[in-house]
Amino acid sequence: MNRQELINKIKAKRSFLCIGLDTDIKKTPSHLLDTEDPIFEFNKQIIDATQDLCVAYKPNIAFYESMGVSGWNSLQKTLDYISKDIFTIADAKRGDIGNTSEMYARAFFENMNFDAITVAPYMGADSVTPFLESENKWAIILALTSNKGGLDFQQIKSEKGTQLFEQVLETSKNWGTDKNIMYVVGATRSEQLSEIRNIIPDHFLLVPGIGAQGGSLTEVAKYGMNEDCGLLVNSSRGIIYAGDGINFAEQAREEAKKLQHKMDILLSEKGL
Amino acid sequence: MNRQELINKIKAKRSFLCIGLDTDIKKTPSHLLDTEDPIFEFNKQIIDATQDLCVAYKPNIAFYESMGVSGWNSLQKTLDYISKDIFTIADAKRGDIGNTSEMYARAFFENMNFDAITVAPYMGADSVTPFLESENKWAIILALTSNKGGLDFQQIKSEKGTQLFEQVLETSKNWGTDKNIMYVVGATRSEQLSEIRNIIPDHFLLVPGIGAQGGSLTEVAKYGMNEDCGLLVNSSRGIIYAGDGINFAEQAREEAKKLQHKMDILLSEKGL
Repeated sequence: MNRQELINKIKAKRSFLCIGLDTDIKKTPSHLLDTEDPIFEFNKQIIDATQDLCVAYKPNIAFYESMGVSGWNSLQKTLDYISKDIFTIADAKRGDIGNTSEMYARAFFENMNFDAITVAPYMGADSVTPFLESENKWAIILALTSNKGGLDFQQIKSEKGTQLFEQVLETSKNWGTDKNIMYVVGATRSEQLSEIRNIIPDHFLLVPGIGAQGGSLTEVAKYGMNEDCGLLVNSSRGIIYAGDGINFAEQAREEAKKLQHKMDILLSEKGL
Repeated sequence: MNRQELINKIKAKRSFLCIGLDTDIKKTPSHLLDTEDPIFEFNKQIIDATQDLCVAYKPNIAFYESMGVSGWNSLQKTLDYISKDIFTIADAKRGDIGNTSEMYARAFFENMNFDAITVAPYMGADSVTPFLESENKWAIILALTSNKGGLDFQQIKSEKGTQLFEQVLETSKNWGTDKNIMYVVGATRSEQLSEIRNIIPDHFLLVPGIGAQGGSLTEVAKYGMNEDCGLLVNSSRGIIYAGDGINFAEQAREEAKKLQHKMDILLSEKGL
């Protein structure tokens, strides 16, 4: 999916919601455990219940990888089930030397047909650029993450006065364009979104940390939204584990609906 | 495998060689392509031909992941085939928020039974510590990598005068011990090994970049070896793709033998 198509979807659906499919067999409602593929069945019902409310799904690859071969099968079936109208993100945090990142690009873009993959910047340009070579495919680079450990290195100030995450933005924005790079910026760091927007006014930001991790949607929109919206705000556990009984999908829909309703208002306030 | 067992193997085999199984179907000798599982067959023959010469194997996970479900099957068969006497490293460069890194730990340590996994430090402590909680399992943290992009961020100097990779070493060494943490330090940066040994005198270093990437084994040993050896030096393409015909495994053995022979001398020179 290209940038303009994504923007159009956001405006049409009145939503910049990304739903994280962190699907854990240990949290799967018990009535699904007897089905042939409980992980896929769970995802299918979540997708059926929420696809009109979100513009993106983000499977967290670790959860599938931890299930071995059956997990990869569940993931592929999930990807195939998601409408091509919806942006798909492999939350994989990959990144290695060039010939290896090429292999990861093949795995997620060619074989599984994701639109985007999250990547770690530590190994620099040649670890990321292989993800920028396919048309309408995206690398989403970690900049400032919402976890506690995000403070260990990302905010170290250089001798020039730049924090590491700012240097990551400054350097990596030249590896591609706002049509094939996005950035991960945690919602728990929303006060820093203004600084980030000074460096990358136009790029889309993938913002996790709403809900379970405590970030505020209003704050994120206030400091991070641009003229094209420029935001994909993710919620995972807050939506998919809203309920754990027979009607878990309806409860997921309720939570997604609440966020979408707020997003509709925030988009309108921005004239979008 | 624990630290002392690894040191004992190094002394007994007169080798600190790690062989990288970056097995690429496009480079697999044509006579193997008709077998049921060419990737596993290739690895099996490489292992048979080299297991007395090395102390570790390091499958590069991207190469298997790019093959989809069949790749994961080939990887699992390869792991099962490697003797428990040999240290196994999942070269996966994983790292995510705590609950997600736990899932990766489950995938590589519990399901596949690797001894170690390479991890990226950008997301900080809680992205790495889930890999330090299983007995005799190791996290191998990226410090200074051998690729060109390694220069983009890893050597940025902080306002305190510390380079980023030095700060990564300083901070992360306290997340575990030299019994469950190693570091990736590229052989092409061997002149910096002395600085690194000032910060972490005792930790094992996994050193890629010998061979195809141009690093020198003698330099690495000169600046990086400690009283327990403290080195695993990796070669991938230089060994496994030494030949591409019917006798590819013998040719791989020749290349491994050359490195092992040099390592024997370097160990003796150190009195090991």
